[in-house]
Amino acid sequence: MTRTVVYQVRVEFGDCDPARIVWFPNFFRWIDAASRHFFVECGVPPWHETEQALGVIGTPLVDTHAKFVKTASYGDLLRIHTSVAEWRGKSFIQRHRVMREDTLVMECDEVRIFAGRRADGSIFALEVPGAIRDACR
Amino acid sequence: MTRTVVYQVRVEFGDCDPARIVWFPNFFRWIDAASRHFFVECGVPPWHETEQALGVIGTPLVDTHAKFVKTASYGDLLRIHTSVAEWRGKSFIQRHRVMREDTLVMECDEVRIFAGRRADGSIFALEVPGAIRDACR
Amino acid sequence: MTRTVVYQVRVEFGDCDPARIVWFPNFFRWIDAASRHFFVECGVPPWHETEQALGVIGTPLVDTHAKFVKTASYGDLLRIHTSVAEWRGKSFIQRHRVMREDTLVMECDEVRIFAGRRADGSIFALEVPGAIRDACR
Amino acid sequence: MTRTVVYQVRVEFGDCDPARIVWFPNFFRWIDAASRHFFVECGVPPWHETEQALGVIGTPLVDTHAKFVKTASYGDLLRIHTSVAEWRGKSFIQRHRVMREDTLVMECDEVRIFAGRRADGSIFALEVPGAIRDACR
Repeated sequence: MTRTVVYQVRVEFGDCDPARIVWFPNFFRWIDAASRHFFVECGVPPWHETEQALGVIGTPLVDTHAKFVKTASYGDLLRIHTSVAEWRGKSFIQRHRVMREDTLVMECDEVRIFAGRRADGSIFALEVPGAIRDACR
Repeated sequence: MTRTVVYQVRVEFGDCDPARIVWFPNFFRWIDAASRHFFVECGVPPWHETEQALGVIGTPLVDTHAKFVKTASYGDLLRIHTSVAEWRGKSFIQRHRVMREDTLVMECDEVRIFAGRRADGSIFALEVPGAIRDACR
Repeated sequence: MTRTVVYQVRVEFGDCDPARIVWFPNFFRWIDAASRHFFVECGVPPWHETEQALGVIGTPLVDTHAKFVKTASYGDLLRIHTSVAEWRGKSFIQRHRVMREDTLVMECDEVRIFAGRRADGSIFALEVPGAIRDACR
Repeated sequence: MTRTVVYQVRVEFGDCDPARIVWFPNFFRWIDAASRHFFVECGVPPWHETEQALGVIGTPLVDTHAKFVKTASYGDLLRIHTSVAEWRGKSFIQRHRVMREDTLVMECDEVRIFAGRRADGSIFALEVPGAIRDACR
């Protein structure tokens, strides 16, 4: 049993390109919001707070694989169903299914890490914090 | 031997997020530009012209798989190396490697189609036009 | 008495820049959505339908003047209060007030036109259609 | 005599909306880049360095007034001519003229401040640093 959180998006005129369909980078914009929304709904504080408590500055993306199944256009209401498909030691797979009513529009599996920051400004993968993992069950 | 075209990007302040690294949907914005730039450099006309000549309204994305290898931040100059890795009957794989000097920052394999539009407004995959394929050699 | 329509926005992580505040072009993204949302709420059809019925392809911006009063950041819920402050012969002034609860965050007066398209592809200002003006009262 | 710096932009397919013209928030994206580019060309360091040396975290916008004179579309090459029209005690007016060859496409006057950050995270206007003002002559 995995927890699923839904994030809702209205497609706007400006999200569409001259072919009158959603310009695809906007799907990733929404999926990134859905990714963070998942943690917010699970009770995880904003990243500038977790930075102090856990050293976590965010969950940058390592790998993403997306399939675009149907087009969408302005006026559409999309619902992104987000869950964690797998927890690993230093990363996790977050799965997003973008639905328009019962129609699958796009789906995406992301590998993300919980990132810390070194003194030189570079970032690195932390062990998945148990407190966050527990919050997401 | 495949043709490779380079598209250059300056990373701007507004492309970065509160973690001070490029917010990842912007990579897809640049890759989409690199994809079209590839065809422009190969001599393919803009899509509103190909629409009349070939029925092609653009090259929408069907599937994309990206790996984020290094972070980038504002002030960075990125060079996206784009080629067609494979031509299929009704689709093609376009490969993009985002470099900062000799460092690989991100790489991405896309499956794209040449799209036509039906009378009802929906889009569909055309056979890869021979004229475009020849232009890209 | 002018009609006011409210458009709601959640500020996302990716809307913010390295200073951790909303990167200002995103305000214009939301205001453009609020502008169209105003017409939708007043019962005006989508632009690809008005194109056939009235020759209107959209309401492009001619002039905008915005004041940024307070910063906003991710997690904020913004409500954009939109009204038409003035109807002119071939243009109108749309006013947007972006609020976070009782706090004014940003305000913006836009001059927009109802645009038609000429045979050569260029656009021009139509007389404000009476049917649309009446719908917005 | 005021110094003018030019920032060059290629308009991309994804910058355009279903009316096939640049979606206007993208002009502000480019103008923000031109604003920072102006300081970079004048020798001012990136904001994360000025934060330590001068307490300056960036130049947020207080007020902007833009006129949209001509439309632009993908394939266009735009050149943004940026200068400081006026220095004030705690703000300055930056002027941007977006040109396509000899045609004025858009112009914009911005009021910006040099921002510092208080301990509570809020930002405020600093006196215009003399070192930066001198660098921009």
